Amino acid sequence: MQFELSKSAKTLKASEIREILKITERPEVISFAGGLPAPELFPLEELSAVSADVMSKQGRVSLQYSATEGYVLLREMIVSQLMSRANVETSKEDILITAGSQQGIDFCAKIFLDEGDTVICENPSYLGAINVFNSHHAKYVTIPMDEHGMIVEELEKVLASGVKAKFIYTIPDFQNPTGVTMSLERRKKLVELSKYYRIPIIEDNPYGDVIFEGERIPAIKSFDKDDWVIYLGSFSKILCPGLRIGWICATQEILHKFILLKQISDLQCNNLTQREIGQFMQTYDISKHITKIIDVYKVRKKLMLDKMAEFFPQNIKYTNPNGGLFTWVELPEHIDAAELLVEALKKNVAFVPGAPFFPNGGNKNFLRLNYSNMSEANIEEGIKRLSFVLNKYV
Amino acid sequence: MQFELSKSAKTLKASEIREILKITERPEVISFAGGLPAPELFPLEELSAVSADVMSKQGRVSLQYSATEGYVLLREMIVSQLMSRANVETSKEDILITAGSQQGIDFCAKIFLDEGDTVICENPSYLGAINVFNSHHAKYVTIPMDEHGMIVEELEKVLASGVKAKFIYTIPDFQNPTGVTMSLERRKKLVELSKYYRIPIIEDNPYGDVIFEGERIPAIKSFDKDDWVIYLGSFSKILCPGLRIGWICATQEILHKFILLKQISDLQCNNLTQREIGQFMQTYDISKHITKIIDVYKVRKKLMLDKMAEFFPQNIKYTNPNGGLFTWVELPEHIDAAELLVEALKKNVAFVPGAPFFPNGGNKNFLRLNYSNMSEANIEEGIKRLSFVLNKYV
Repeated sequence: MQFELSKSAKTLKASEIREILKITERPEVISFAGGLPAPELFPLEELSAVSADVMSKQGRVSLQYSATEGYVLLREMIVSQLMSRANVETSKEDILITAGSQQGIDFCAKIFLDEGDTVICENPSYLGAINVFNSHHAKYVTIPMDEHGMIVEELEKVLASGVKAKFIYTIPDFQNPTGVTMSLERRKKLVELSKYYRIPIIEDNPYGDVIFEGERIPAIKSFDKDDWVIYLGSFSKILCPGLRIGWICATQEILHKFILLKQISDLQCNNLTQREIGQFMQTYDISKHITKIIDVYKVRKKLMLDKMAEFFPQNIKYTNPNGGLFTWVELPEHIDAAELLVEALKKNVAFVPGAPFFPNGGNKNFLRLNYSNMSEANIEEGIKRLSFVLNKYV
Repeated sequence: MQFELSKSAKTLKASEIREILKITERPEVISFAGGLPAPELFPLEELSAVSADVMSKQGRVSLQYSATEGYVLLREMIVSQLMSRANVETSKEDILITAGSQQGIDFCAKIFLDEGDTVICENPSYLGAINVFNSHHAKYVTIPMDEHGMIVEELEKVLASGVKAKFIYTIPDFQNPTGVTMSLERRKKLVELSKYYRIPIIEDNPYGDVIFEGERIPAIKSFDKDDWVIYLGSFSKILCPGLRIGWICATQEILHKFILLKQISDLQCNNLTQREIGQFMQTYDISKHITKIIDVYKVRKKLMLDKMAEFFPQNIKYTNPNGGLFTWVELPEHIDAAELLVEALKKNVAFVPGAPFFPNGGNKNFLRLNYSNMSEANIEEGIKRLSFVLNKYV
């Protein structure tokens, strides 16, 4: 047979990262390629306890169909315990439970994008979002970044020049892939621009809670008095990713459309899982659990950067993230990170080449390193191996 | 704010059924409106046991990210224990795990439909599918049904006349909403037409296992030697719907596109849940469990039809389904089922008016009754109440 596909399906391509991850699954490879949280930190005992309790006390209702918008207690816990950490005052009526924040991104694309519409985003940006926007044949206007995140002054020039875009997609906290965080001033300015130019902001914020030093900068949504910000949250990095639970926080006017979209997409999220996470948050202290994650990742990040300082060639730059899962490495311009990966894999060390994170292409001399999913011994050994390869290139 | 939405989002409308279900949630209402399975049949003890076991033995891996296509053991169990019941020989490589069969329907729309494309389906058809296709601005060519399902001879005329459609969507077993089953001969003929006219068939088959008398007719896919059939399965009616697990069975050539779509939509299904259901099927006999469901629904169906025969006015017709969850009632042409519902609710009995199930409109004199989610006492009392209202109308 030969199927006649939709335009969108014709352009679907395998994610470069997923393909690379397959290669790196050999046990002898030390892989900094994934974006996986550390499984040894998953609160297994606590989740087992709430799971047993939910099954015994509300088993039948948990296994039945339920409301599309999500389980009420979970939405309340997200408001009181997580949106509050981001400094966002909201209510459960503004929350829709989604299958991870990936579904939130996919829904934003469907709600706003027609073929050929323009998206504004950071350069580079999250590959999983770029793949979604590509499937809608989006065009990109990219905004450069510095150590304070998206250069909002550049965004202002773009908007003032008359560029019409459907939304601004941003990961303000410990951005994927760069690890960089947007400054307070820029967040405020971004919200002003959004209001002035009447353009929604998609604030994708899965990493904000995993902060190493100092206070968390309030979410962009916390400055949003006119409801232009759609906030995407996730349990993947603060609890575990396998349960596929995230949320959208937005004004009901637009959230209503998201709920309708959820209904035709998959009716609702897993009801049992929603109840388990809701009860987990009611029974245990998720802030304490997040502190545990922070303590471990902070040590790993520091070790990775210390070893890079010790072993990497001098002309290689990298970010020093204050949270999240990734550091971002800039190689001398003549080095293609994809070619470097071939050599690195021969030495049994892996990373993600950075080019696919640039929606309009170019920039082959970048790579992303993950430190959350790796023992200290492996971080040290992996960085040594990578340094060995790099030293042959520079 | 005033958001500028995509064309698709502008047309998103609330599901009539969901809105009605909200009204019917008053405890005094006997509701035949939903499509809910009987929660008292959920295998709570068994699911609790596998849940505890999976958490204790494979907890950390179950809570981590995993493969987009789904958990291997679950895909194997679906092949050996469920696709085999449908007479389909396949392999795990042809299975993608989805968030219920609703996600399968949504994915089919995305894979095949551009704006304005034509879908061929039964008249009436499943509302949840129509709502998906509507969001793609699909056009419909509908094929009438009789007691042997879609009149495939009519389909042949349509295809011979040159109608170009992207796929044929059908629910061959105990169709939603009619409860009617497609005959063996028509299934074979349908597959021939599909091959000759090079048009894929979407076989949506969530009810096939719930059969009251005799042998299950082999799935349409079982006659498909040329890979034109995409089969959608679900655990919602044979296990429970709250876990949101279904599957797509299709040739790898096209399944590959579905997997890529799954990746950008929500990365993967809930890993823990997939492992729990996989282990449930490995440990317990799902066929035995399905027999339990059949025994209960069969009694409920018979009671509902007996009471309709006893109390309904003579000029009202209804189907006698040999399985599934629904019977379909045809009223005299002058009665509008939506108006009837207003009166019925005054007597505290509810159903779903049939008009939204006809994709091209018309046919206001139909309604759908669900018997799976109701005690025998309530079936008897509910049909009496409905008969009281009907007798005033005819």
